[in-house]
Amino acid sequence: MVKSFLMLGQSNMAGRGFIHEVPPIYNERIQMLRNGRWQMMTEPINYDRLVSGISLAGSFADEWCCKNQEDTIGLIPCAEGGSSLEEWAVDGALFKHAVNEAKFAMQNSELTGILWHQGESDSTNGNYKVYYKKLLVIIETLRKELDVPNIPLIIGGLGDFLGKVGYGKNCTEYNFINQELQKFAFEQDNCYFVTASGLTSNPDGIHIDAISQRKFGLRYLEAFSNKQHVLKPLINEYELINLNHARTHTKAEKIYIKSLDFALGKISYDEFESQLIQINND
Amino acid sequence: MVKSFLMLGQSNMAGRGFIHEVPPIYNERIQMLRNGRWQMMTEPINYDRLVSGISLAGSFADEWCCKNQEDTIGLIPCAEGGSSLEEWAVDGALFKHAVNEAKFAMQNSELTGILWHQGESDSTNGNYKVYYKKLLVIIETLRKELDVPNIPLIIGGLGDFLGKVGYGKNCTEYNFINQELQKFAFEQDNCYFVTASGLTSNPDGIHIDAISQRKFGLRYLEAFSNKQHVLKPLINEYELINLNHARTHTKAEKIYIKSLDFALGKISYDEFESQLIQINND
Repeated sequence: MVKSFLMLGQSNMAGRGFIHEVPPIYNERIQMLRNGRWQMMTEPINYDRLVSGISLAGSFADEWCCKNQEDTIGLIPCAEGGSSLEEWAVDGALFKHAVNEAKFAMQNSELTGILWHQGESDSTNGNYKVYYKKLLVIIETLRKELDVPNIPLIIGGLGDFLGKVGYGKNCTEYNFINQELQKFAFEQDNCYFVTASGLTSNPDGIHIDAISQRKFGLRYLEAFSNKQHVLKPLINEYELINLNHARTHTKAEKIYIKSLDFALGKISYDEFESQLIQINND
Repeated sequence: MVKSFLMLGQSNMAGRGFIHEVPPIYNERIQMLRNGRWQMMTEPINYDRLVSGISLAGSFADEWCCKNQEDTIGLIPCAEGGSSLEEWAVDGALFKHAVNEAKFAMQNSELTGILWHQGESDSTNGNYKVYYKKLLVIIETLRKELDVPNIPLIIGGLGDFLGKVGYGKNCTEYNFINQELQKFAFEQDNCYFVTASGLTSNPDGIHIDAISQRKFGLRYLEAFSNKQHVLKPLINEYELINLNHARTHTKAEKIYIKSLDFALGKISYDEFESQLIQINND
């Protein structure tokens, strides 16, 4: 049975890391939900916008596969760029849609964790004062509607690059939101906080860049696996990323990669066919 | 109230035209559904696969806006690459998910039409013999579940490039499927057939290329607007496409385009800000 994870939050959960800045992840044991069904994961996973890119879910899932050699992981992308916590209220479209998507996934998977990253849109106007209370209603209702009272909820912090330049300049109260996120994870059962310390951003000053999303995913997985908060960067983040990238692809993954090249017009059908023969002979 | 259209079928409804082969469409009166909500349309609209690209829905919607100057159109992307008609059966995930998406859309839009393009996956093994019967159950159940007994259903034909090369080579019975699609549209109420005559494909021999998707969308719109079958290419397809591309963008569209450039790292924040000032001064 696929072990599935729900992706909730705003753009840094959806992912805005530039695709070309990190090696792609192809892993036939990572699935993603599209049109209510599972398919092999490619990035962007959470296509909420044309500018969607690398999210933390990719390296989270890849590292999960290292630790769970016999199993398959499924990602349920429901994050929405720019969404405020208010827009995630339980009577709104985002919440209801996420519940629906999760229910499709749960028809043939076991919902195993919830990944949350949100708060940039609330890092102003004193919104932090009601953040905890609002988030609690959302999470409690979600657990109830999906009948998952005890699965881990992983909450990531906001980046220290906020409040300075570009789109991030307006996030003047991101530190207060971080305090609320951390407090929430410390106080609520089955909830773990993951620091964004040391992560870097795109030039827009708000979106976590691709390599930092890879690191962030490893931290989320560490929190999930150990059921512990991750309050400082892992010491071996680069090492783990390189280790996963160095893995030899399976035959199915090699065929998948060639199919993409062909579908995108990068190689001819004759080249495609001869490369398939080579893969099958290897 | 947004007038919404449901996109159903397989890859040629999702769209596989190469993005770089045609000028993009930016039109603030075209919305698309994401996470249960409306946002301004960008292509790919129906992101079922990494290789998703230009679909017929873009030019359909753009031309619809020319004919409906005061209104807004919404696209509900539910097409799934490679799906057979059997996979669209009313107890399957694709059908149920599409009904769900349509219901989200209908909370603040009027479902106004259904766009269907499917059949490549059934162009073999004598599947055409049961196509009509199966499609009838799907359409009748869909109309009932969404309470839209009379809105137009537009059905496009399969391309004459099929059955020859690449992935398209296996579609040996595409002509029989075309006969069934046409028969269905001729016999069923509020259903119109659109020919794929003259359309061309990507090098894969199965996917309608970008410029042909633009033409196909115009034909779908012609069928929808006139409530008539379109049995041969429109005489002014290139002219209409060029006319729509030549439209001056609104201020909101110009800002949107610049935001994309910035989010993708193509221009700096300083350049972005100065270009916004210029747009606002124009």
